[in-house]
This record gives sequence, C-alpha cells and structure tokens, in this order.
Amino acid sequence: MDILSFAVFAKKAQISNTRLSDELKNKALLNIAKRLDENKEAIFGANEADLLRGREDGLSSPLQKRLLFDENKLSQTIEGIVSLTKLPDPAGRVMSVTELDDDLILKKVTCPIGVIGVIFESRPDALVQISVLCLKSGNSVLLKGGSEALETNKVLAQIIHDAACEAGFSQGWLALLETRQDVSELLCMDEYIDLIIPRGSNEFVRYIIDNSRIPVLGHADGICHCYIDKAADIDKAVKIIKDSKLQYVAVCNALETLLVHKDIACHILPMVKEVFDAANVRIYGCERTKETIDVILADDDTYFTEYLDYAISVKIVDDLYEAMEHINRYGSGHTDVIVTEDNDAAEVFLEMIDSANVFHNCSTRFSDGFRYGLGAEVGISTNKIHARGPVGLEGLVIYKYKLTGDGHIVSDYVEGIKKFKHIRCGE
Amino acid sequence: MDILSFAVFAKKAQISNTRLSDELKNKALLNIAKRLDENKEAIFGANEADLLRGREDGLSSPLQKRLLFDENKLSQTIEGIVSLTKLPDPAGRVMSVTELDDDLILKKVTCPIGVIGVIFESRPDALVQISVLCLKSGNSVLLKGGSEALETNKVLAQIIHDAACEAGFSQGWLALLETRQDVSELLCMDEYIDLIIPRGSNEFVRYIIDNSRIPVLGHADGICHCYIDKAADIDKAVKIIKDSKLQYVAVCNALETLLVHKDIACHILPMVKEVFDAANVRIYGCERTKETIDVILADDDTYFTEYLDYAISVKIVDDLYEAMEHINRYGSGHTDVIVTEDNDAAEVFLEMIDSANVFHNCSTRFSDGFRYGLGAEVGISTNKIHARGPVGLEGLVIYKYKLTGDGHIVSDYVEGIKKFKHIRCGE
Repeated sequence: MDILSFAVFAKKAQISNTRLSDELKNKALLNIAKRLDENKEAIFGANEADLLRGREDGLSSPLQKRLLFDENKLSQTIEGIVSLTKLPDPAGRVMSVTELDDDLILKKVTCPIGVIGVIFESRPDALVQISVLCLKSGNSVLLKGGSEALETNKVLAQIIHDAACEAGFSQGWLALLETRQDVSELLCMDEYIDLIIPRGSNEFVRYIIDNSRIPVLGHADGICHCYIDKAADIDKAVKIIKDSKLQYVAVCNALETLLVHKDIACHILPMVKEVFDAANVRIYGCERTKETIDVILADDDTYFTEYLDYAISVKIVDDLYEAMEHINRYGSGHTDVIVTEDNDAAEVFLEMIDSANVFHNCSTRFSDGFRYGLGAEVGISTNKIHARGPVGLEGLVIYKYKLTGDGHIVSDYVEGIKKFKHIRCGE
Repeated sequence: MDILSFAVFAKKAQISNTRLSDELKNKALLNIAKRLDENKEAIFGANEADLLRGREDGLSSPLQKRLLFDENKLSQTIEGIVSLTKLPDPAGRVMSVTELDDDLILKKVTCPIGVIGVIFESRPDALVQISVLCLKSGNSVLLKGGSEALETNKVLAQIIHDAACEAGFSQGWLALLETRQDVSELLCMDEYIDLIIPRGSNEFVRYIIDNSRIPVLGHADGICHCYIDKAADIDKAVKIIKDSKLQYVAVCNALETLLVHKDIACHILPMVKEVFDAANVRIYGCERTKETIDVILADDDTYFTEYLDYAISVKIVDDLYEAMEHINRYGSGHTDVIVTEDNDAAEVFLEMIDSANVFHNCSTRFSDGFRYGLGAEVGISTNKIHARGPVGLEGLVIYKYKLTGDGHIVSDYVEGIKKFKHIRCGE
C-alpha cells in the first residue's frame, strides 16, 4: 500500500474507533501485552538482526544500547501497558455543560485528535509506548522509527496492530512507514494527518516544521538553565547542578547553561569547577567567570549552544532580573531552574520565565512524563499552544461541542422572542 | 517603529504583564471603557472619514454597515468590556497539583500564550473585542484590521493601549499594523509571535497557513451540513433548515449542504423548495433530488462549495451512514446538524461526525461564542489541536509546569534511594 492509502485508511479507522468504550480499549491493551509476550522469540530474533546490522555498520555503543530490545525491556514495556489500563480514558470526558436555554444543552466533550504521525528515534520500546498511548486516547497512528530498528519495529507494529483488531479495533488504525521518502509524503497529507510529533535532533524537528503545514508538537532545542541566586543554599546548588548536568548528558532536559549571582560566584564556582573537572566537563565562561575560575572564554554563540555532552556554559549575572532576561532570550522554553532560599525571588522566577517547566530547588532532569506521574509521554513540547512540557494522554485529545435542542432556531433569539439563560452546570 | 520592534516590545511587555492581578486587569478594562466613552467624538470622526472614503471607493452597503462605528456600536462594545470584568481570570488557574515526593510538588498552572497576531475584517468593534480578550488573558497583541477601517482602528488602538497602560500595563502590549507588507513581516517572526488568528476569506486563511511556521488558529471553510434523518419531525426540520440557511447567509456557520434521507425526501423537499423559492435561493441537487423537485443539477464540486450566499447544495442519501461519510468527506469540520427524533441515531451522529460543533435538532447558526455563553470570541476554530469551535478566553491561555523542591535530584530516584509517590491532589 502507498502512504496515502495508509493515511486514508487510518482516518477511516479512527472515526469508527471513536465509539469504542474504555473497557474495550483496556481489553485491547491487555491483548497487546499478551501477544507481545507470546511472540517474544520473533521480536528478539528481529532485534538481533537489527543489532547485527548495527554492529556491522559501526553503530556507536550508546546507540546499540538504545536499539536493544531484550527480556528486560519487554517486561518493562508490558508493565507500562498494564499500568495504562488503570488510567482513566482521556476521551469522552465532559468538560462543561451549559444550559443555553430550556431544552438547549451545550456539552464540551473531549475526543481523540484523529490521525497522529510520530517520527521517533531508534528505540523499539518507544514504538510500543507511543502506539498504546494513541490507542488509549482513541487516535490512529502512523509511525516512522529509526531505520536501525526497522526489523524489530516491523514485528512490534504488526503484533500491536493485530492484537488491537482482535479486541475490536478497526483495521488500519496503526501503520509503520519504512523510508524517509514515506516521511516526506506524510508531511504533505494535511487532509488526513492532524498532528505530527517528531522526536529527534534540533535540525530534524526544524525540518519538519518548515516542510509541513500540519501542526507539530515537540521541541527543537533543550537549552536548560540553572540560576543560582544570591540567597541559594550552596550545598543544594552544587547537588542540583551536578545532577542536572551529569546524571545523563545526552538528553533534552540536561543542564546547558549555569547562571550565577555575582555575590555568590566566588563561593560556589570553585566547588562547581571541582565537580566538573572530576567528570571532564569543558566549561565555557564569561569574562567575569574567567576571573574566578579557569574556563574557556565564551562568545555570544556560547549561550545558544545545546551541548548534549560533557560541556557547559557559565555566566555571572548582576541579579535575578538579568538572569531572567538571559533565560528568556537565550533559552528554548524547555526547563529552567532557580536555586534560592528566597521564596519571593522563586515566585517571581516561576511566573516570569516563559518556559514549559519552571523549577525551584530541584534538578532540570525531573521534566519527564514518568517523573511527573503522567504514566508515559509521547514527547516533551515547547509549543505555546495545545500541550506544553511532557505530553501524556491528555495531550492526545481535543474536544468538540455537542449541542442538543428541540427545533431551536437563532432568529428567535435575534428577534428577542427568546433569551439565552447560559446556566453553567457541573464544572 | 518597524514591525520587528513592535514584536520585540510586545514580547517584553507580555512577560512583565504576566504578574498583573485579575483586579488590575479589570481596572484596566473599566478604564478602557471610560476612555472610549470620553473620546467618542474622535472615534466617530475617524469612522466618518473611513465611511466617506469607503463610499468614494464604492464599498458595498453591507460592508459599509460593518464598518460603521456609531453610538449604538460603542455602547454595545462598552457593555461587552464591562461584562468581561465579571468573568474569571483564565490565567493563573491551578489545573492540577501532584505530590511527586515529600516536598517535591508539581503544579500545572494556566498562563498567557504570549504574543498573538490577529488579522481581522473591516469591523472596528472586532478590534476592541479582540484587544480586551487578549488583555484579560494576559497576552500581548499585534492587530491588523481591514484597510477600510484604518482611521477608526488607529484611534481605537491608541485609546485602548493607553488606557491599559494608565492602569499599570507595560507599554507596547498592543500595536496596530497598517499595511499588507506589515503582515508579511509578521508571518516570519516565529521567535516573537506565538499564535496567529486570521479572520477572513478561505484563500486568505490558507495563505497565512502556507506562509508562516507560526501556529494558526481559525478556520478556512465553513461548509456546514444539515442531515434530515428518516425519523425527523418535518416541522422542526423545515424551521431549522430555514434558520440555518437564511437567518444570515454571509457567515461561516450558515448552512451550505442539505442531506435528506431517501424515505423522507418526497415529503420534505417540496416544503423546503417553497421556503427557498420565496427567498430566491438557488438550489443545486443530486440526480435523485432533481427527480423530486426542480433544481440545478449538482456536480462533484458542488459539495465542496461554501456559498455564503442565497444558494444551497442538496443530496438525497440512503441512510445515516452515507450522510456521515458525506459530511466527513466534504465538510470542513465546522458545524453539522442532524434532525431526528431517534436519539440513538443522534448519538451516533454526534460521536462520529468529526467537526468542532455537532448539533441535534437545532440551527447551525448557534455555533458562536456569545450564543455559547463564552462572553465573546476571537474566532471559530476548525483546528484539531489546542482550541476548537468558538474560541473565547480559555483558548488564549496555555499552561506551564511549576515544580518546587528542596534540593531534590533525579539520581536518587534512578538509583532507588527514593521512590516517587505521585499523589494527585485537588483535581
């Protein structure tokens, strides 16, 4: 089948799946878990083929690790699916009821978005997670995973699709795209695809945004900041900086720029330097930082850099306001932290930093769907509309207005024969 | 000032306005109402200049009527502003609180979107309505109105901007763009503009979507359907068809396509024909319709047509499912109605029609922010994300996650030293 047929099919399936109950969705989820377990040898076999090809192609060892889908990953994945059955159905929730007039009742009700295109990295467990989130929210999904994982993805997609159909889902609700050309075609199908979620590098996400008029949910950069206020507790600050920068350097919520209040810089910077030196972190600092500790001198580009590596930018600022201006200018609206014992300063920071995740006295690394308790996430969004921050089930629904009357017409209200009541009930 | 400066200025103002209280916003609204009233002679004078130019340029009489801003429009406008002070602040609302662990509290809190670009028709009262909705929700706004209303818009924008600043808003929160070239520049400023709301013709909205990577909220077409089921009450059906098509033909929520169940067609179509003939409505019908009443024969393009005029498409369908397929294929996801006494059929229709507004036994013309009790609207959206249907204050906010800890780091949780609690409180 060509990509257009997949898309048309997915749209049809989505509309007929709209009426499936939460009970049936959960039955489908449990059947997926069961079928994955029953077919694990086929999955592991395909994964070994991918891994072998990866090693032959010289895939780096961190990437090989992400590609691996073994007994351990499978059991985590199945656990995730089972826990999803315990979350409430995000679709069909009545958000508000308004009595516009006698027998004219307006309901705002959540519903699936429609067909979602997700383009993701070479992690087969991501395929499962995204698929089951789309299923639970009633959406159809077109998936394109990293080519390194193609064999594993093919087996997983087939099992998940079929297991849901066995439980009552319409055929075609999930499809796997296999080539880059497929993605280019996908980007043009704004008639059938309602939302694209790209996960990957900055350049890749920008490419998607520039080449499609379908709405895109996600983030390009993750230039996360930590501002150490003059009223910071030094021990907390060092602990938070270390965790934010070093707990996992290659992820979007890792710390990239450290801002330090001038009054506290000479106390804290030597301690920070010790931590970073021990981990071989390259430090790029402003002139004032360079007067305090030994660093590579930063230029203006430094503060726009997302390292995703053992490197960090440092800048000394005069006060909270300079810190906030810096973050709102150079940041990417992802995750920014203030460390301070001054609650008023923290409150101002949390209000005025224009980012999806604004933190006080904790690590940048907490911005994550699992850590937030969302169950799982399809990605982290720095969009300013629809969904922001880690996006779980709630970001996969929209709403529609259902109005029920009994022959009501507008001219009666325009001519003053009737008057609206607008009684809002049960919010 | 150039457009870029306006945008930079608006973004700065928005961030500093973020912390303004609802009380102060309401004070600003009341001051705007007061200043509009005090300066009404200047407003009416500018409007007369616009009207004179319009008449000289041969502006049609309906457009002249929309352009008019007189004592009556002013008092309605002021009434609208005062009623907005009675609505709750859409920003700063705590959507959820989760205790991730002891002393690690996650709050999801609504906040303004940022800077909104609104491009609207030649109706000066729309400028006021949009501006005050943006103010109340804490957003900055760049406005571009129809050039016919330029003089009136200039006076109104200045009064509104200054009156809000007198009450404590930061300068630059509102700016008026004056030329089409300004709009082209605006579309490129995705760094500063967070959302564009275009109101206008189909081609215009598509042009905006195709020429900007800034998210767009709105609708291109309004191809609204009314399906008369076999179990329809004929009197209600005729009343609803008449109101939907004829109460105001030039608007997006007017009826464009009538679908009739085959079993009821010969009863109802002659009555519908009588109503339409009396109003000189051109009727384009399918072959089966033509066998029943005298109509112009439809072709396939007919059903993709938004007339906004005294014309309608008619099609006879075999059943509910053919009606739904037709609507989901030819419709624009705006407003669609079923007329039936069969509540099961109505329920299926409201679920399976993929439109922003799905109605049972009432006129398409009800899909409107005022009629829905939203206070006012910035427009009607057929988007599948963020906001759908009539968009009022709630569509002008997003949320951020605020996380407060006490030195919490992620490695404690990864290493199993601590465990997440994820206690959701007060939803």
